[in-house]
Amino acid sequence: MQVTTLTADQLDLMDRYWRASNYLSVGQIYLHDNPLLTRPLVLEDIKKMLLGHWGTTPGQNFIYVHLNRIIKQHDLSMIYVSGPGHGGPAVVSHTYLEGTYSEIYPEISQDTAGLQKLFQQFSFPGGIPSHASPECPGSIHEGGELGYSLSHSFGAVFDNPELIVACVVGDGEAETGPLAAAWHSNKFLNPVSDGVVLPILHLNGYKIANPTILARISHEELEQLFRGYGWNPIFVEGDDPKLMHEAMATALDTAVAEIKDIKLNASRSDTFTRPRWPMIILRSPKGWTGPKEVDGVPIEDTFHSHQVPLSHPAKHPEHLALLEDWLRSYRPQELFDSAGRLLPELAALAPEGKRRMGANPHANGGVLLEDLPLPDYRDYACEVATPGVQGIGDTHLLGPFLRDVVKLNEALCNFRVFGPDETISNGLGALFEMTERQWTGTTQSNDEYLAPSGRVMEMLSEHQCQGWLEGYLLTGRHGLFNCYEAFIHIIDSMFNQHAKWLKITAEIPWRAKIASLNYLLASHVWRQDHNGFSHQDPGFIDHVVNKKSEVVRVYLPPDANCLLSVMDHCLRSRHYVNVVVAGKHPAPQWLDMDTAVKHCRAGIGIWPWASNDENGPLEDTDSIAETDLVMACSGDVPTLETLAAVSILREHLPSLKIRVVNVVDLMKLQPEAEHPHGLSDDAFDALFTQDKPVVFAFHAYPSLIHKLTYRRTNHHNIHVRGYKEEGTITTPFDMTVLNDLDRFHLAIDAIDRLPQTGAEGAKLKQWLNDKLLEHRQYITQYGEDMPEIRHWRWGSKDGE
Amino acid sequence: MQVTTLTADQLDLMDRYWRASNYLSVGQIYLHDNPLLTRPLVLEDIKKMLLGHWGTTPGQNFIYVHLNRIIKQHDLSMIYVSGPGHGGPAVVSHTYLEGTYSEIYPEISQDTAGLQKLFQQFSFPGGIPSHASPECPGSIHEGGELGYSLSHSFGAVFDNPELIVACVVGDGEAETGPLAAAWHSNKFLNPVSDGVVLPILHLNGYKIANPTILARISHEELEQLFRGYGWNPIFVEGDDPKLMHEAMATALDTAVAEIKDIKLNASRSDTFTRPRWPMIILRSPKGWTGPKEVDGVPIEDTFHSHQVPLSHPAKHPEHLALLEDWLRSYRPQELFDSAGRLLPELAALAPEGKRRMGANPHANGGVLLEDLPLPDYRDYACEVATPGVQGIGDTHLLGPFLRDVVKLNEALCNFRVFGPDETISNGLGALFEMTERQWTGTTQSNDEYLAPSGRVMEMLSEHQCQGWLEGYLLTGRHGLFNCYEAFIHIIDSMFNQHAKWLKITAEIPWRAKIASLNYLLASHVWRQDHNGFSHQDPGFIDHVVNKKSEVVRVYLPPDANCLLSVMDHCLRSRHYVNVVVAGKHPAPQWLDMDTAVKHCRAGIGIWPWASNDENGPLEDTDSIAETDLVMACSGDVPTLETLAAVSILREHLPSLKIRVVNVVDLMKLQPEAEHPHGLSDDAFDALFTQDKPVVFAFHAYPSLIHKLTYRRTNHHNIHVRGYKEEGTITTPFDMTVLNDLDRFHLAIDAIDRLPQTGAEGAKLKQWLNDKLLEHRQYITQYGEDMPEIRHWRWGSKDGE
Repeated sequence: MQVTTLTADQLDLMDRYWRASNYLSVGQIYLHDNPLLTRPLVLEDIKKMLLGHWGTTPGQNFIYVHLNRIIKQHDLSMIYVSGPGHGGPAVVSHTYLEGTYSEIYPEISQDTAGLQKLFQQFSFPGGIPSHASPECPGSIHEGGELGYSLSHSFGAVFDNPELIVACVVGDGEAETGPLAAAWHSNKFLNPVSDGVVLPILHLNGYKIANPTILARISHEELEQLFRGYGWNPIFVEGDDPKLMHEAMATALDTAVAEIKDIKLNASRSDTFTRPRWPMIILRSPKGWTGPKEVDGVPIEDTFHSHQVPLSHPAKHPEHLALLEDWLRSYRPQELFDSAGRLLPELAALAPEGKRRMGANPHANGGVLLEDLPLPDYRDYACEVATPGVQGIGDTHLLGPFLRDVVKLNEALCNFRVFGPDETISNGLGALFEMTERQWTGTTQSNDEYLAPSGRVMEMLSEHQCQGWLEGYLLTGRHGLFNCYEAFIHIIDSMFNQHAKWLKITAEIPWRAKIASLNYLLASHVWRQDHNGFSHQDPGFIDHVVNKKSEVVRVYLPPDANCLLSVMDHCLRSRHYVNVVVAGKHPAPQWLDMDTAVKHCRAGIGIWPWASNDENGPLEDTDSIAETDLVMACSGDVPTLETLAAVSILREHLPSLKIRVVNVVDLMKLQPEAEHPHGLSDDAFDALFTQDKPVVFAFHAYPSLIHKLTYRRTNHHNIHVRGYKEEGTITTPFDMTVLNDLDRFHLAIDAIDRLPQTGAEGAKLKQWLNDKLLEHRQYITQYGEDMPEIRHWRWGSKDGE
Repeated sequence: MQVTTLTADQLDLMDRYWRASNYLSVGQIYLHDNPLLTRPLVLEDIKKMLLGHWGTTPGQNFIYVHLNRIIKQHDLSMIYVSGPGHGGPAVVSHTYLEGTYSEIYPEISQDTAGLQKLFQQFSFPGGIPSHASPECPGSIHEGGELGYSLSHSFGAVFDNPELIVACVVGDGEAETGPLAAAWHSNKFLNPVSDGVVLPILHLNGYKIANPTILARISHEELEQLFRGYGWNPIFVEGDDPKLMHEAMATALDTAVAEIKDIKLNASRSDTFTRPRWPMIILRSPKGWTGPKEVDGVPIEDTFHSHQVPLSHPAKHPEHLALLEDWLRSYRPQELFDSAGRLLPELAALAPEGKRRMGANPHANGGVLLEDLPLPDYRDYACEVATPGVQGIGDTHLLGPFLRDVVKLNEALCNFRVFGPDETISNGLGALFEMTERQWTGTTQSNDEYLAPSGRVMEMLSEHQCQGWLEGYLLTGRHGLFNCYEAFIHIIDSMFNQHAKWLKITAEIPWRAKIASLNYLLASHVWRQDHNGFSHQDPGFIDHVVNKKSEVVRVYLPPDANCLLSVMDHCLRSRHYVNVVVAGKHPAPQWLDMDTAVKHCRAGIGIWPWASNDENGPLEDTDSIAETDLVMACSGDVPTLETLAAVSILREHLPSLKIRVVNVVDLMKLQPEAEHPHGLSDDAFDALFTQDKPVVFAFHAYPSLIHKLTYRRTNHHNIHVRGYKEEGTITTPFDMTVLNDLDRFHLAIDAIDRLPQTGAEGAKLKQWLNDKLLEHRQYITQYGEDMPEIRHWRWGSKDGE
């Protein structure tokens, strides 16, 4: 007698459980009424709009049943990531069958009435979306946009040594770039201190209307590909449910045994060798167990099963009978009792309590979230005895702070820094005094800061950095992504999805808030003078502010003390996306720590020491003094150029009253009705006046300032300079000149708006234009900026 | 005696040629003067700012020398794509040595003076960038942003059966998602009708500060990985130049022989089998031939050689001697004559004329560009006897037009349609009456429209679609990318780079203009009601308009005839990025073809048949009649809702004078100083008045309209509705309600801005609010929109 993994009884029970989940899935797509088919199906039982994706669903149902078995058998802590998340009926069906759904949504009870509601709500106005959406317990991955399931899964298991993420990768999704690169994440996973990702590549065969690439290469190539990626693929292929149940059970037993072996060996070993983790390649028919053929068109195992196979029972009455046959093929009377409750011998197959994948707390990470222990950021302050002292580069002061965040975090182990390959380049090298880059590839003697475990994650894929970080945050930890400003656009679309996830989950009471996703864009547009035009794009902010104001924050600290204050705030915050743009090159420092803290807390304010309109830092807006001109700035380089311009104007036109306003928190500019940080109109008017010219030097594209301020009283007087897509390899100062953001242009802009400066103004304007010519000649001759630019300091004359 | 590929003479000559290119590369990075080292090096000979990337350069120089040999030997048409394009000195050095550089830039002559200028200009203000930038002949790929070299290469060879693209893929770049997926492009290449990509994976070992993944996996895994991807990898590994020359020459001979075999066999065979194309894996030291060690730190073969190895000769005088040793190690006197000219026996190694990779016309595709033969789009018109007739879905009328573009293009074979998997879903299924999807994977009986050659390219990777199309356009052909609107953000960053390329090349006289990159975003935000929130994002337009106005165009045709007119225009245009947003679902049609043509030519205009302010289509702005209200709209769904709102207002408030303005060409809204399409202020005022309320229903995020119009006279009266990040699975009409863009909200917005409507207005407002409640109740009960919404037609009452 052949030894099998499953007894005949087990196999029968599991097959029934699978049929139950398939029945519920078809029910969700189609049924408005008659949930247990207690009477013949009639047209009125069918929903009017039929929306959903059947194709991937039965395969995912199959996987879930089998994962339940190994969870119970080995008492595993496992969560389920549905790459083809559009097969939402699968995760909804299973979390309902295992009981988690009804616990969270008591009205979706485990009886006939609950079943009916379960069916009705799916893809219905006021109901639930058709994807593995945030509303579904157990989901950390919506799956609407394809490509990120594997990165999310790896992010989830970092520092979660007991967790296994079963990650279903669709063969459509597998064609995307982010997914194709994510297989290499195994070169970063530590078998002792991290958990395990068990990828299940689901060769469903088809996309919407095409076969998939991986389903149409030879078995040999497929095996080579995944062995080349460093995995040990276990194949499960077929369409006969009985044979497939046995094969899948055996494959999972093998995989779990390999995982246990790897972890045990690693924990016992002194030396580190990257293991070859198991994965499963499951080839099963798309639309498995669905209609074989409709109107002469083959459905099962073709792309025609992608969405709703019988889509118009109203127009084609014969489809009604087909649908009824299909539903009855699962024999619901063998699955549910007359009250609509799953039979107890089937219910017993699901794990219990928090072992259920829908109830595993890792999939609702906010409930596990602990505050990040932070050192006092004031201890890392740069001394600023007088505004304009030269700093070493703002992020270089942040580095030691982050290093000590890591230090304080040794026990909790819930903080990581992610980036393509730029942690040192971005000025955060101090981190490596405390930790290393986690790397499980081979090492060589000349390598630096690589170790099998560490707090810094570097892979030259912004997609992986973002995906890992998202997975890490979604499972209740903290992190930071440092990136070149221009190339953060690579993950625009991933940001979209995460921001949408945050918006929805904030509205779901049982979803606990998670830590914010923090971006540090340290290699920014104004200091890409040596990389040139391709590295210059400050538009990520524009992209970010299109998302719901409840979840997005943008900070442009003008110096290192402000950066420290802002980053401390971001690391404490919850459920936002925080974008912080800061410099890494030596740059002047403006505010001592006390002043910086007050300034950042306000988010925007007058800098009285730079102004001569006799205002203080504007705490009392009633008593504000008159001014002739507002010179506003946001961002480190624009702040420097603004102050230099103010210094020129004050020297040459001493009677002019000038107010300098600096913006750290960009969202302050929006109306308070549009963003929770927005200034009231009164407060805005107090700063920017109701009628005086405003010259605004901005870090990014100028139109963004107009977009944020168009409703303000004095908007028509706001003149903005910023990046206008001009740039090449040149000097740092010339980058500002090419974009009219330099001190000379800013001063000219001011004079142009101040007719009262008359002949004196005209004379100064001539001098400024001469300066611009002088600059051009100097740099083309010497290849560097004029000494008076390189050595300019606030309060000195000509850089003395 | 061992038979070798290279004779001793050949090897010596090639090694000298390599040394010449290395010498020129180091010279470009460092030297301001003394280009031939005719006297000892002094500090004044060195540039003040040292900028560039040495690490990748010698390896690329090595590759280029060897490619020259096989080009000559086999008379190949080959171009060079530099994935690690930041090694700009390599391509500049080689195009200079082969003579193409001086032909294009005569001042960079082939003598000492020219050498000096060549060195000085590199990474210098007013000079050339440090990447394989557009200024460099032979480049179609700047390489600033990593990940797209292989996709560009495949795009370049489609329909270019004689062309071979030698594509150097850096091992850093190979970690990115887009590159990891691009290896699968071989499943789409036809060996008869397409050219060949010869990938050269350059295992340089390190990124900026890290080893690379592919350099740190075993030889076995590496080979499996690329065999799994379907390639036949040929390994060239080592650091001894002599051995490496021989190995590389042998590898390239093998590769060329395999390529010839494959092409010959394919051309002779009746049946199709996907071939296993050769590729080369070159493992050579990073910074090869550079300093071994500086200040005790190993440089060659470590990441420390990434940029400028001796970066401060001024601060460290001993570095000056090291630099001189390094330069002299190439023995320039054995390479150049005393006049600074490459010795003739070396110059003879380069191919001649257009066979030189810097002179191959495919790398300046505009010179090969032929107009796309187009049928008369008017022949595909939808009959619109009266505004509001129901259409079958706008893109469904575009499909037959595109089908016939393909038909007329059979001989020229220079047009392709790209998309992830959505050509049919996007309404362009008519294409398959004429052509098929090109696919060289295996096929099965239930597949549809797959063939080894075809005009439609579908891979579920927006990155590949974009990269292929860019490569196709850059080599002088035409194309269209159809994509879901939300997911086009996946290629935001690729769009950035292409737009930057277009901007720069437009300014380079010898670069001929190429065809525009055309996006058709047919599955747009307002009809993702069945996919839900994750599929809703109209922000790509915002992203696009940040780029230079000279190169970007955005069109929102309100119906099918306008779409035909717009697409005809886009396919004829040159050197733009055109974004066209259009619907695919059945929708009302407004303009007959003649009217549509006029409307699209104007880009914006009054719709007199929908207005009651007695204006014509506004050709004479002097005689414009007064109005009380402007109802503006842009996009198909906003146009429908605006017309429905106007119809309500006209019925209930018949004395109100209403003007309907429709915007097809979004850039018309910008000031003429900002965009070449921008309306003059007078023309804008004529349309939008100077003081009347404007309710603007917009397809995308409302703030974009404010951003484009904030300088206009009447801006403070423009009230915009658009997508505000509200959406889920619901009915199509409810999507507009959730975002306040529906007819009822628009009418309320109008009344709120028209106090003169008094009690009548208040009464109507109450009615409208009741309608909104009725709508909500209806859809939650029935799951579909009220009949009066579903059947509403312009000119009828309540959908009669």
